[in-house]
Amino acid sequence: MPTQVRIVEVGPRDGLQNEKSMVATADKIALIDRLSATGLQSIEATSFVSPKWVPQLADAAEVYAGITRREGVHYPVLVPNEKGYERAREVGVEEIAVFTAASEAFNRKNINASIDESLQRFAPVMERARADGVKVRGYVSTVLGCPYQGAVPLADVVRVAHALHDMGCYEISLGDTIGVGTPGKARAMLKAVAAEVPLSALAVHFHDTWGQALANILACLEEGVAVVDAAVSGTGGCPYAKGASGNVATEDVVYMLHGLGIGTGIDLDALADTGRWLSTVLGRDSGSKVAKALAAA
Amino acid sequence: MPTQVRIVEVGPRDGLQNEKSMVATADKIALIDRLSATGLQSIEATSFVSPKWVPQLADAAEVYAGITRREGVHYPVLVPNEKGYERAREVGVEEIAVFTAASEAFNRKNINASIDESLQRFAPVMERARADGVKVRGYVSTVLGCPYQGAVPLADVVRVAHALHDMGCYEISLGDTIGVGTPGKARAMLKAVAAEVPLSALAVHFHDTWGQALANILACLEEGVAVVDAAVSGTGGCPYAKGASGNVATEDVVYMLHGLGIGTGIDLDALADTGRWLSTVLGRDSGSKVAKALAAA
Repeated sequence: MPTQVRIVEVGPRDGLQNEKSMVATADKIALIDRLSATGLQSIEATSFVSPKWVPQLADAAEVYAGITRREGVHYPVLVPNEKGYERAREVGVEEIAVFTAASEAFNRKNINASIDESLQRFAPVMERARADGVKVRGYVSTVLGCPYQGAVPLADVVRVAHALHDMGCYEISLGDTIGVGTPGKARAMLKAVAAEVPLSALAVHFHDTWGQALANILACLEEGVAVVDAAVSGTGGCPYAKGASGNVATEDVVYMLHGLGIGTGIDLDALADTGRWLSTVLGRDSGSKVAKALAAA
Repeated sequence: MPTQVRIVEVGPRDGLQNEKSMVATADKIALIDRLSATGLQSIEATSFVSPKWVPQLADAAEVYAGITRREGVHYPVLVPNEKGYERAREVGVEEIAVFTAASEAFNRKNINASIDESLQRFAPVMERARADGVKVRGYVSTVLGCPYQGAVPLADVVRVAHALHDMGCYEISLGDTIGVGTPGKARAMLKAVAAEVPLSALAVHFHDTWGQALANILACLEEGVAVVDAAVSGTGGCPYAKGASGNVATEDVVYMLHGLGIGTGIDLDALADTGRWLSTVLGRDSGSKVAKALAAA
């Protein structure tokens, strides 16, 4: 197991884009600034996907321009294409994330393209990012199951992760988008990818829809992964299972890591405070059991 | 990892005794009968602790007498002393469970006795059970932390588990009563106990108060444990942390086990149906993410 883990906080993007409540721009900025004060090193700030598709993050430029950059903290943003890249660069974005799925059916349904076509669409963005010295993170979604095709062949996960790495992504986040995976499958998936892409370039991204996220993360830590995505307060829900849980809560991941003797650099109490504040803003219960237990203690 | 795991369903006892709602006797009986139809082999039916202490289970005799015994299913009941033993035997109980804590402070606070005194108090119950051919399961609580003394020395956990085994308990359930444990500590605790008591005589019992239960169970499965306690719908709450989660939900454990290729003999859909029915009876949300995801699917 690693001795240090870097958490990539995806709440402001992956969390909020799937919450029903519209969050005020000022609150989004406050969230990111509060998060950067907890010791987090990577905070995915927003998404420059078209507001038509993700109305919750239509204020991406205002949010990014409004945050107080903290030294040593990275603020990647999601970018789907050149247009999004340009919008992001206009406000000074220095790190982006691109995304595709390991499932053919998911890609067809979401962007009307095959996996290979979706990869080709990134090529111009990757080229410009390289020229501009912009770091690129890559997301592979549906790595353990797809809401449309069900099972996803491991070979497709490996192929997509490998392609993103070859195209220049410094890190590939492997996402169980619908949260159906269990630890043995998560471990096998990670091992298969790590046979083709250096483990040090891999991150895991689990949703807790079926309650398995922490167990899956544990299995992947045992395989040596040292970067874990999570969202404070477990925001996000699951667009494919109404009423179900979303991202694994950062608080719960950090509590487990610290208990395992793995350093994160994060102040758990400050993180839990931020999560409780966010729950109040969203008018919903926290999705973090650690936050609830701390509040009750 | 084991190829088969036996789940000990503790919802009707450990779950309901910590729920605020009083459940009608007929509903308790219906719960147990529904559970026995799912393929569960062990269902802790109730507790013959004094109704003064556990008013929720004051109808223990009526519940036990009312259930329809299914061939091959065991229905242990909690028994604190000879008086409880006698009440249990009057209605035909064939398996009991006794309990103590690994924490000196917890024993002092709860039963005004040291660990050693609490063990001595079982001696007459153990003797009568042996004479009557009644099987005895033993619970050790607070194995990973105590609400009064904080840390619990591993040596105390080992000593108590060993003593219960020596006294004739066929199985010792190691309980993280306040749900504070993390996987490395759970694993170390299990290993320490397994050095003194055969692993085949050990079970694990995790509460999900800090969200760690499934990860802890995974770590213990990796050490070879093959008996896991859980409560359908994740009932129970935590008397030491108001508003926090209680027992790990059986549905979530079974989903993980099946995903790992480990057999349980349990029909997950029937189990989840029963959990949703119970949530309706209790007028609360299910504590099982699997139940919610299945309902949404």
